[in-house]
Amino acid sequence: MDLLLRNIGLLATPTGNTARKGDSQGQVTLIENAAVGIENGTFVYVGSSDESLKGGKVIDCECRLVTPGLVDAHTHLVFGGWRQKETARKLAGESYLDILKSGGGILDTVRHTRAATEAELYEKSAALLDIMLAHGTTTAECKSGYGLNVEDELKQLRVIKKLNKTGKVELAPTFMGAHAIPSEFTDNRDAYIDLICDETLPAVQSEGLADFCDVFCETAAFTPEESRRVLGKAVEYGLIPKAHVDEIDPIGGAEMAAEMGCISAEHLIRTGGAGIRALEKRGVVACLLPATSFCLGKGYARARDMIEAGVAVAICTDFNPGSSPNLNLQFPMYLAGLKYRLTPAEALTAVTLNGAAAIGRCNRAGSIEVGKQADLVIWDAPDLDYIFYRYGTNLVRRVIKKGEVIEINKYV
Amino acid sequence: MDLLLRNIGLLATPTGNTARKGDSQGQVTLIENAAVGIENGTFVYVGSSDESLKGGKVIDCECRLVTPGLVDAHTHLVFGGWRQKETARKLAGESYLDILKSGGGILDTVRHTRAATEAELYEKSAALLDIMLAHGTTTAECKSGYGLNVEDELKQLRVIKKLNKTGKVELAPTFMGAHAIPSEFTDNRDAYIDLICDETLPAVQSEGLADFCDVFCETAAFTPEESRRVLGKAVEYGLIPKAHVDEIDPIGGAEMAAEMGCISAEHLIRTGGAGIRALEKRGVVACLLPATSFCLGKGYARARDMIEAGVAVAICTDFNPGSSPNLNLQFPMYLAGLKYRLTPAEALTAVTLNGAAAIGRCNRAGSIEVGKQADLVIWDAPDLDYIFYRYGTNLVRRVIKKGEVIEINKYV
Repeated sequence: MDLLLRNIGLLATPTGNTARKGDSQGQVTLIENAAVGIENGTFVYVGSSDESLKGGKVIDCECRLVTPGLVDAHTHLVFGGWRQKETARKLAGESYLDILKSGGGILDTVRHTRAATEAELYEKSAALLDIMLAHGTTTAECKSGYGLNVEDELKQLRVIKKLNKTGKVELAPTFMGAHAIPSEFTDNRDAYIDLICDETLPAVQSEGLADFCDVFCETAAFTPEESRRVLGKAVEYGLIPKAHVDEIDPIGGAEMAAEMGCISAEHLIRTGGAGIRALEKRGVVACLLPATSFCLGKGYARARDMIEAGVAVAICTDFNPGSSPNLNLQFPMYLAGLKYRLTPAEALTAVTLNGAAAIGRCNRAGSIEVGKQADLVIWDAPDLDYIFYRYGTNLVRRVIKKGEVIEINKYV
Repeated sequence: MDLLLRNIGLLATPTGNTARKGDSQGQVTLIENAAVGIENGTFVYVGSSDESLKGGKVIDCECRLVTPGLVDAHTHLVFGGWRQKETARKLAGESYLDILKSGGGILDTVRHTRAATEAELYEKSAALLDIMLAHGTTTAECKSGYGLNVEDELKQLRVIKKLNKTGKVELAPTFMGAHAIPSEFTDNRDAYIDLICDETLPAVQSEGLADFCDVFCETAAFTPEESRRVLGKAVEYGLIPKAHVDEIDPIGGAEMAAEMGCISAEHLIRTGGAGIRALEKRGVVACLLPATSFCLGKGYARARDMIEAGVAVAICTDFNPGSSPNLNLQFPMYLAGLKYRLTPAEALTAVTLNGAAAIGRCNRAGSIEVGKQADLVIWDAPDLDYIFYRYGTNLVRRVIKKGEVIEINKYV
């Protein structure tokens, strides 16, 4: 083998090629004194550390914890500008809707994203992606949705495509033209949906720029009916549907997502029993975003009820310049215990295999098993509980992506 | 000058040699396109960037934000063991008191601290201190309180003394033998207080190991009467009093702290109007610990009311292995806006000058002014709002401590 990791104190990984749900979300394989062998970017040995094992390059893991590389299945990585000025406005009592009405909020990000060149967006996003990688994320989903016209949605998706080629983090691209109604269409919503369905989606398909299509089904964004129309058309164009639902108002979004056969439904803060049952019935992965709940202060999704109902739960950053300006998946991992009451094993599955399932990658990512691609994290931690406890500073010591070793500075 | 920092996009600092309170907590000096000159570890120039300025070594700050070095005025840095195993127990429904009764909680940390050698504690704490420094903390307070007998309290304080000599972060040492009643004195509280007053305090004084004495005034720890006794004796021995008060139950702790002339009172989660007025009247700095509130989920101190009543507010990590295992003061800074509704300027003062005031160091630390020691942070940030917005990953680019430049890895 090209690379041998020996003296792993504890290897912790979920297993399998499908999402883990119900009781099985909390069942992870634990191997003490483990070793991992890698060849051509693929795991070829996972088991006990054995003196007879030989490798071209050998890494002594010094009794540390090793887990699969983290999968962040919901991010809005590519955008222009930042929105730090809104904090002071919110402190002064302005609501998000006030800020939006004055051209702030998502409209501000749309303006800056449209104004940025592809090269500018690429450079900015590549630097952010390096930070994600240094914090353990080896695979991430990445949405458009700040262009909101044909040209600028394609520009964002081309940036994602280029990042995917040039960067170390593997990206799953999602077209999200239905993120908001752009201001030029405020009085003609249907015309914007026509534009998505008749122009943007065909162009996205013809350039092969996205695997998924997401829609923001919410009172202030798209109705369930409009969402069905967009996702139905996306499926015709060969994209896999996803939907942001029940973040603010429970308008039947989870049910719509299940009905449309979405691979995942996002947010789900207000989703109740009927929605949870609908997700379970159709095998939709629940992508929960606790850092967004933390920033917005409007409550947390019923993660425990979802797990107990047999829904596969993934946990993601929702990195974006408005409601979640945090790139580090370790913080949502901490919130998973503190706010969702998930055990460390359940939360580990949520940020590895179930994240991979939410983006259709769990046949090759999300677990440390022979035959899967060699993505893992070596933590500055002696056990699994520790990485769900010592939050606030980066606990990643080394990241391995497709067999490539990335050293992280000890202060990170 | 030995060192010149030029091309500072924005320099933001409170000013003065006393705590800032009331309206003045939110008044910070902002200089765009600034420069800072340093000689022999002291600021000798603070003002506009001017082509005529010359320095031995020149750092181009590339339009970034510069603030004073952060002052973390409340930490329990030195201890044995970690308590990650308690997370799973809490998730399973055990209360902290249940865990304590079974020998967990602080008793577990006391056991591990007693069992560790001075060298082991030093090595562990030095590594943690490096992480704090990399996140912008240039001065920190550091308490004993996990030894709870003469020998092991002195051991912790000797570690702090050595860290202060060998490390880059400057430490203010606090004796906190009155952190808990050790299990061997459960049935004889008075005898433990006698031990503190008659043996530990004199030994601490004779070795010159502490500047401050802190006591945990709380239902489950020391009564206000017992706290008065310990702090009164500490003052006789030349130590400056501090007190942990009103974290869980409002038993008159803030009033006690004011009456005893404490330089600072800590936690103050349950402190009401009378306590706030008492703090204001005696000029006690309120050391607020929002990350502890975040971890415990039991509410936040009335920071806005304190500022509006004219109390100087400092914000600290409370780093400890139980209720706040986070070393990074940037996270409490974020919580200061989100949960306390402090403006960026108020929160900056809280983690610089007012932190320094809480440990009697604001004549030389906590602001960027000619004559003060040259402690500052160069941030990967364009403005002050940004460091209270993009939480979750380290935004520090470089730290300067007494004129020494410490480069931080770009991923940190």
